[in-house]
Amino acid sequence: MSLAEFLLIDRIRARTGARADVALGIGDDAALLQPRAGEQLAVTADTLNSGVHFPPETPAFEIGWKTLAVNLSDLAAMGARPAWCTLALSLPTAEAAWVDAFADGFFALADEHDILLVGGDTTRGPLSLSVTAIGQVAAGQALRRDAAQVGDDIWVSGTLGDAAGALRLWQQGRLDVAAVAAADDHEQLRQRLLCPLPRVKLGQRLRAYAHAAIDISDGLLADLGHIVARSGVAAQLEVDTLPVSAALRNALGREQARDCALRGGDDYELCFTAAADQRDALHALANMLALPLTRIGRITAGQGVHGDNLPGADGYQHFSPTP
Amino acid sequence: MSLAEFLLIDRIRARTGARADVALGIGDDAALLQPRAGEQLAVTADTLNSGVHFPPETPAFEIGWKTLAVNLSDLAAMGARPAWCTLALSLPTAEAAWVDAFADGFFALADEHDILLVGGDTTRGPLSLSVTAIGQVAAGQALRRDAAQVGDDIWVSGTLGDAAGALRLWQQGRLDVAAVAAADDHEQLRQRLLCPLPRVKLGQRLRAYAHAAIDISDGLLADLGHIVARSGVAAQLEVDTLPVSAALRNALGREQARDCALRGGDDYELCFTAAADQRDALHALANMLALPLTRIGRITAGQGVHGDNLPGADGYQHFSPTP
Repeated sequence: MSLAEFLLIDRIRARTGARADVALGIGDDAALLQPRAGEQLAVTADTLNSGVHFPPETPAFEIGWKTLAVNLSDLAAMGARPAWCTLALSLPTAEAAWVDAFADGFFALADEHDILLVGGDTTRGPLSLSVTAIGQVAAGQALRRDAAQVGDDIWVSGTLGDAAGALRLWQQGRLDVAAVAAADDHEQLRQRLLCPLPRVKLGQRLRAYAHAAIDISDGLLADLGHIVARSGVAAQLEVDTLPVSAALRNALGREQARDCALRGGDDYELCFTAAADQRDALHALANMLALPLTRIGRITAGQGVHGDNLPGADGYQHFSPTP
Repeated sequence: MSLAEFLLIDRIRARTGARADVALGIGDDAALLQPRAGEQLAVTADTLNSGVHFPPETPAFEIGWKTLAVNLSDLAAMGARPAWCTLALSLPTAEAAWVDAFADGFFALADEHDILLVGGDTTRGPLSLSVTAIGQVAAGQALRRDAAQVGDDIWVSGTLGDAAGALRLWQQGRLDVAAVAAADDHEQLRQRLLCPLPRVKLGQRLRAYAHAAIDISDGLLADLGHIVARSGVAAQLEVDTLPVSAALRNALGREQARDCALRGGDDYELCFTAAADQRDALHALANMLALPLTRIGRITAGQGVHGDNLPGADGYQHFSPTP
C-alpha cells in the first residue's frame, strides 16, 4: 500500500458514519459486524468499469452514486434491509478532488439508506469500482426469482426505459453526461441513467405482497425472462401497458421509447409478481410510497416471455464504445 | 449482462461447492446466508490489478490463487473462520481457457479452506480481481491490531522476504513468473510470490494465545508499524532474528535478503504479539502446525518500530512497472 493509497483511504474513511452493529470498522485487517439474531444475510456484488458501464466523462459524483445504487437495487430486489458494504476502488491517479466528489455521491446514497462502508481497498489501475453489499432479512422471507406462480400479475415500479433513452441520446450526440442538460426532459433522463433510485423501501414492503422479484438491470425482457425461467412458468406481457415517461416519449418518440422500455438496461426498477387479490394493497402501497406500480401482464403456464408485437428478446448489452 | 458474461459466470458457478449455511447461492439478485448465532462477521476486501499487483505475464492459476489468498490472509489475521466470498472479475476478453485456469487456482484454495463463492460479477475491462471475504468469529474473540501490550513478545510465522525476493529476481530478469523456475531456490521464491499460503489455521489457534495480530502484506516494518500505532506502544526488533529462507539468502545474499524481510510486501505471514508466558504454548503450536513461529522482538512503551541498524521504515510499494 503506497502513501497515496493511505491518504485516499483516509479521505473516504472520514466520510463514513456509524451503526450500532459495527464492532470494528475500517482500519484493521477486517471489519467486525454483529448480525441480527434469526436473520439471514443477503450478499451481492456488482462492478462498474469506466468506458464499459458508464461513459468516461461521467462526473465523479454520479459514478459514486451509481456504484452503490446498483448494489442497493439488488438488496431491494430481495426485500432485504441494507446494512454494510465494501468498496474496491481502482484509480489511474490519486486525485483528491475526484475522490471527494465520488464520496459525495456514494455517501449521499449510503446515508439515505443507512448502509455503512466497513472496508475496501484503493488501488492504482484503470477506473473500476466494485461494491459488495450485505443486507439482512428474516429467514425464509426474502423475495426470490424462482417463486412466481401461475395466475400472478406482473408488476413494475416507476417508469421503464429512461436510462436507455439517455444512453441513446448520448450516443447520438444529443446529451452531455458530464453536465446538467439544458432541456428538462433530457436532464430527467440523464438523472435516471446516472443517479438511479434503488427501490429499497419498496422491496422491503413487497415481502408482504409479492411472490417473486428482480431488479431491472439488464432490461425488462431479459430480467422477466430470469423470473420465468427460474420459476418454471411463462409471462404474457401487455406491451401497451408499459409505464413510459413523458420525457422519454418527448425525446425519442413512441416507438423508440417502447423499445427502450422493453430492452433497455440500467432502469433499477423492480419487476415482481403477486396474486391478483393483492391489487388493492399494491395500489395503496404505491400511493404511500409516491411511486407508481403498474400491472404489465400475467404469469401463465409454459415458458418464455410473450406479448403482442414483441421484438426479439435478446438481453441488454451494457454501454460499450466497441459493441 | 452480455451473453459472454453469462457463459463465463456459468463456468465459474459450476465450480462452486456447497455449505449448509447457504440458503441460496449464485443466481438470484443476492445470495442468502445463515450466519451462526452469537458470532460476529469478519469482512474484508482486496483487489489485484494486472500490472500493478502482479506482472501481466502471471499465469491464470496463480492469479486465481493469489486473489483469494490475500483475502483469506486478512481473515486469518483476525482469527476468523472463512465462510463466504464474492468475486468481481474484470476481463479484457472472454477466454474460456483463461477462466478455467483461473478457477483452478481460486477453487483449489477455496475448497482447502471451506470458503464458498456466493456471488459476484464478470465484466469487460482491464484485468482486475476484487474479492470480498466474510468469516465468522465468536463475539469479542477476534485478533485486532490495537491490542498489543507492553512486555509482549513479537512473533512472525514462516519466513519473511521471499515474495519480495522473487520480485527482485523478476525485475533483474533472473526469474520468469510465467513458468516453473529452473533452479529449486528460484521456484520456491516464485511460489511464495504467486501462491502464498494464508495462515488461516494459525490465525484461529492464535485467538487463545495472542493479543494483537496483522498479516504482512505491506512489509514487516509497515505492518508492525500499524500494530504499534493502533496499540499506542513501540516495538523493539531484533533484526538478526528475522526468519529468512535459505532460498532467499542463496538467491540474493544476506544483506538484500534482510532488506526483503524487513520491507518486502506480499509475504502473507502473520505478525502477532503475545505475553512472554505463552512461549511454550506457541512453540508447541508451531510443531503441531509444522509452521515455524519466531520471536523477533518485544513491545515496549513509546512509539514507532526500533532496532539496531534499522533502515528507513517506509512502506512497501506494490509491484509497479513505473515506480
